[in-house]
Amino acid sequence: MPFGLVKQLGQARRGAFITPHGTIQTPAFMNVATCGAIKGGLSAFDLKEVGCQVQLCNTYHLHLRPGDETVKAMGGIRKFTGFEGPVLTDSGGFQVFSLASLRKITEEGVSFQSHIDGRKIFMGPKESMRIQSNLASTIAMAFDECVENPAEYAYAKESCARTTRWLRRCKTEMDRLNGLDTTLNRQQLLFGINQGCTFDDLRVEHMKEIAELDLDGYAVGGLAVGEPTEVMYHVEEMVIPHMPKDKPRYLMGVGTPMNILESVARGIDLFDCVMPSRNARHGHLFTHEGVMNLNNAKYQRDPDPIEPGCDCPACKRHSRAYIRHLLKSGELLGLRLCVTHNLYFYNTLLADIRAALEDGTFEALLHRARGVLDRRI
Amino acid sequence: MPFGLVKQLGQARRGAFITPHGTIQTPAFMNVATCGAIKGGLSAFDLKEVGCQVQLCNTYHLHLRPGDETVKAMGGIRKFTGFEGPVLTDSGGFQVFSLASLRKITEEGVSFQSHIDGRKIFMGPKESMRIQSNLASTIAMAFDECVENPAEYAYAKESCARTTRWLRRCKTEMDRLNGLDTTLNRQQLLFGINQGCTFDDLRVEHMKEIAELDLDGYAVGGLAVGEPTEVMYHVEEMVIPHMPKDKPRYLMGVGTPMNILESVARGIDLFDCVMPSRNARHGHLFTHEGVMNLNNAKYQRDPDPIEPGCDCPACKRHSRAYIRHLLKSGELLGLRLCVTHNLYFYNTLLADIRAALEDGTFEALLHRARGVLDRRI
Repeated sequence: MPFGLVKQLGQARRGAFITPHGTIQTPAFMNVATCGAIKGGLSAFDLKEVGCQVQLCNTYHLHLRPGDETVKAMGGIRKFTGFEGPVLTDSGGFQVFSLASLRKITEEGVSFQSHIDGRKIFMGPKESMRIQSNLASTIAMAFDECVENPAEYAYAKESCARTTRWLRRCKTEMDRLNGLDTTLNRQQLLFGINQGCTFDDLRVEHMKEIAELDLDGYAVGGLAVGEPTEVMYHVEEMVIPHMPKDKPRYLMGVGTPMNILESVARGIDLFDCVMPSRNARHGHLFTHEGVMNLNNAKYQRDPDPIEPGCDCPACKRHSRAYIRHLLKSGELLGLRLCVTHNLYFYNTLLADIRAALEDGTFEALLHRARGVLDRRI
Repeated sequence: MPFGLVKQLGQARRGAFITPHGTIQTPAFMNVATCGAIKGGLSAFDLKEVGCQVQLCNTYHLHLRPGDETVKAMGGIRKFTGFEGPVLTDSGGFQVFSLASLRKITEEGVSFQSHIDGRKIFMGPKESMRIQSNLASTIAMAFDECVENPAEYAYAKESCARTTRWLRRCKTEMDRLNGLDTTLNRQQLLFGINQGCTFDDLRVEHMKEIAELDLDGYAVGGLAVGEPTEVMYHVEEMVIPHMPKDKPRYLMGVGTPMNILESVARGIDLFDCVMPSRNARHGHLFTHEGVMNLNNAKYQRDPDPIEPGCDCPACKRHSRAYIRHLLKSGELLGLRLCVTHNLYFYNTLLADIRAALEDGTFEALLHRARGVLDRRI
């Protein structure tokens, strides 16, 4: 079995996901390298230092630049970026619906304008699979429509049905591509994405439908796009019981450290989020005492590392005073050090979660974290 | 003797400059960390990987932000930035005359407006010494007036005389500061700066005057500020015979790889320049075949490193195609990798120069480089 459960505590799962490019210990956080590089100047080699197991790259961005044919010519996304572990590519769907303009949806896919140069592009399930096959990622995501919350029930239902039809086309196309001699990674895995906005019946119905397709993993999509956190947890609780137990479960684009802990408790195995790098840009740093703002004047002459006791390359070498100065001066090193710390924090949090699941202390970890990890300090 | 000549070939010198913070093998290139960090996100720890012996920081910038008192409170510039080797601070003079606005020069110094927030600041020889003493660099530079070329003879002469008077004040103040218990680095060294624009008699006269002050080293300033390269070499040839033989000679703000080779041939020991990082920003990369422009379309699918055979961290790990993609996408990693390569190239060029001086092949190295290193490829 490619996905094995090491231990289960309530709904929370400690697992191992065996991929052709290495085993992912779950729960795991995927580090986002949108255009093939982590924002803030980290390289694939730095990712090892921050404990990253899986790199996530964006199909939409790489299709536009440098072009998936170029990435294929360079040996695929792993060779291109130098990251040796597993890489997941999203489907491009979320970006088509959030970044591109002048969208027109048909049964075959979406035509839209590039956010870079305005040129017209068409992407549907087949195109997304071909692009991801060229990128030769370890895991490809199915092409779906991502509807903003709150949505009209009728539209959400129609969109859901279309996403299911698209998923079938994705599977057929991926099977075909994996059978071709010219394909770089003929063992590429495919995850399906559950949609249905915040409507319980649509979510559950859709999950049941796609579970039948026996894909390599399943994601919950369309969350953390405007709805209250409690609604997100509610959707997870509705959907997860209908997700296959023997497949990895991925909550897309989520979230804060507490979102991750709460979602592990509900049965999620994989996460990704731009929060560690985006927050770093504003000097917001994750610690076990809460989120600190390094721009605060009180850190101006503070010789301590960002988080005393932290073993990340930024904390082992530099003071709050120095990193704050770099941020204030607009020096790129400041951003790089903050992203380094935040990614290390996320990856270490997931390692702590795995250890707590193994030794049966996950509930205690969760209770200690509530009201602490997300507070502003 | 703090400065010893290992070997001399014609005017070219292979030396060793013993400082309280380590020995600098000369000729050497000082890596510019203006605000206490190399542009492009390199840290003091990365500087080791690119072969940097000396870090140069800017007094003007650090005085404005985070403030030299803050740097002193953090243990000085070496502890603040984490660079363990020798650090040279410039005097602030060049920045006061090139970056600040509403300057007014008096016998005591210059009043000007900060380029950051417009606040009024006064800096003269005493102020510059106090700031650099707070920064606690290994080597402080004297406060001078930097006149743009071409200049009027009468003004250049007046400015030269003032710079000499300022230098005497610098020395007196530095001696006083090094004698105080409250001074962080009581062994701080002081270099004088030769000025005189492009007027032979002023240059020589000024050099003779300041040589009498028995400083720890001497710099040639006010070059590479608009005059033709041949004029710069001519000034070097005029001035260098009057520089003390037993002191390190520093050519400020210079230059291209060929400028460095030609100036070593004329007897210069130390260099600094923002060119490696500034050119990197535009994708211009130094190689032993000339300067390549990585933005060129021909590199789009080029799997080679920037310079085949180069041992820098960028060339050992990444392809031209990937780094070009990063630059095109505005990813900070692209800039970081280009700066890494360019600084490694400069530091390695200086190491090659030292080796060639030791084994007597410097002339051959110089002849091979002419017409090659500076060409665009």
